[in-house]
Amino acid sequence: MKIRRSTRLVDMTYYLLQNPRRLMSLTFFAERYQSAKSSISEDLVIIKQTFEQQGVGTLQTIPGAAGGVKYIPYMNEQEADALIEEFCKQLSDPTRLLPGGYLYMADLLSNPHYINGAGRLFASIFAQHDIDVVMTVATKGIPLAYAVANYLDVPVVIARKDSKVTEGPTVSINYVSGSSKRIQVMTLSKKSLQEGANVLIVDDFMKAGGTVQGMISMLEEFKANVVGIGVLVEAVDIEERLIDDYVSLVRLSSVDIRDKVIELERGNYALPALQQEELVTEE
Amino acid sequence: MKIRRSTRLVDMTYYLLQNPRRLMSLTFFAERYQSAKSSISEDLVIIKQTFEQQGVGTLQTIPGAAGGVKYIPYMNEQEADALIEEFCKQLSDPTRLLPGGYLYMADLLSNPHYINGAGRLFASIFAQHDIDVVMTVATKGIPLAYAVANYLDVPVVIARKDSKVTEGPTVSINYVSGSSKRIQVMTLSKKSLQEGANVLIVDDFMKAGGTVQGMISMLEEFKANVVGIGVLVEAVDIEERLIDDYVSLVRLSSVDIRDKVIELERGNYALPALQQEELVTEE
Repeated sequence: MKIRRSTRLVDMTYYLLQNPRRLMSLTFFAERYQSAKSSISEDLVIIKQTFEQQGVGTLQTIPGAAGGVKYIPYMNEQEADALIEEFCKQLSDPTRLLPGGYLYMADLLSNPHYINGAGRLFASIFAQHDIDVVMTVATKGIPLAYAVANYLDVPVVIARKDSKVTEGPTVSINYVSGSSKRIQVMTLSKKSLQEGANVLIVDDFMKAGGTVQGMISMLEEFKANVVGIGVLVEAVDIEERLIDDYVSLVRLSSVDIRDKVIELERGNYALPALQQEELVTEE
Repeated sequence: MKIRRSTRLVDMTYYLLQNPRRLMSLTFFAERYQSAKSSISEDLVIIKQTFEQQGVGTLQTIPGAAGGVKYIPYMNEQEADALIEEFCKQLSDPTRLLPGGYLYMADLLSNPHYINGAGRLFASIFAQHDIDVVMTVATKGIPLAYAVANYLDVPVVIARKDSKVTEGPTVSINYVSGSSKRIQVMTLSKKSLQEGANVLIVDDFMKAGGTVQGMISMLEEFKANVVGIGVLVEAVDIEERLIDDYVSLVRLSSVDIRDKVIELERGNYALPALQQEELVTEE
């Protein structure tokens, strides 16, 4: 039975969104809807135009027999601004203040709404990089790293501060926490990362950057490449920052512990324009 | 500018999928597309029919002034079978065998494809329960718990086996790991859970169930209710199971360490039928 356009549009949109950055062949869609490839191509043009118009992504086509179409997620400047503003507003609540100048953020880091937003924004920021895997260190950054990985369609690799029996052989390194200057241990399962992999490091909070530096040292052991570093919140007022080249979404500009005033601002991120290619599909 | 139906269908599908179980008002859509509510209602009927036909979900309407429409994600029996078969095939690889009868699963637990699939399946299984929050214990189960929470639009709460300064005051309990009989500590931030909350416990692997039992004890401290327990893989051949009422997706039926043979089968889960209501929308 032939399926009409409106049904095809809804179902194709569903399929593309469920599988960000994953190649879908036109033949798959043509067979699924018992429709000509030319109709499928027309549908894809409508979907692409809609996504681009709303600033939520685009479709990329890979021509040829092994080709097809991919959904590339995106967040436009306007939506990003609104998200960052919401983060700043939430985080400025003085009851979040914890000893040591930390902020309680577990509620935001566990809320799908905020985490998906931050994940889509990071995926948009790093969209033009060739990324094989997202790395983080347990525990609090995991949902964020997972959300980024989801929009990039790559796996997450989780380093840990302990070593569990159930992960097989591990590599351990020592690193110095930048703010407390304590020596710490980080372990990563040997199986979890391939030599030469391109890695995006993601974490929820960065003070001096000791933990991120630890992840970089770990990646050296695996002969993997750091292609980017993204942190949700960076603290300023740091005497000695160990990491220079990173992207932050939010910056904690000042914390007045006595008067309980937290000031936040937009981080240093730059959002590249959405890469729009012409949709090339054979008929 | 009035927007034509095909564009509306794509954009509304996008919006609904991005916000599972979140109420969207018809007025919001009508204003967004400069279209009459009657047209929006017709669009919603098409989207609902398509989702139901493909077995990927439905739309639920809440009538009245504060009403609107919600996307309820679902996975049908056929897709669930294919997913479970894939899990079993992947997990039966003998190189996954680790000391103590554990399996290396970190690659699957960090792969968005598998984790989203398992998340959507658990959300379908527990769809009819009133769930306020998904709970797990660090570390490996976090991406899975997060995926389930995402499809249910609720936050994740993560108990830990250590206590970190950055989460504020915590509650700690002792529990006995069911298989190793060792006394362990579990901590949870006081702020992370409300009294009386309805909690779905999610974990990646269950042997005797000591860790799940620990989470249940923790929830008693918070006066919260356990409304369900879901584990990705359960081990059989357990002398004394501490937990009876749980849902598993995959069952590890036998592990022959000497000959390196791992046998897996479908877990004990039952998939309720998709609840289809009539779409009631005012015009």
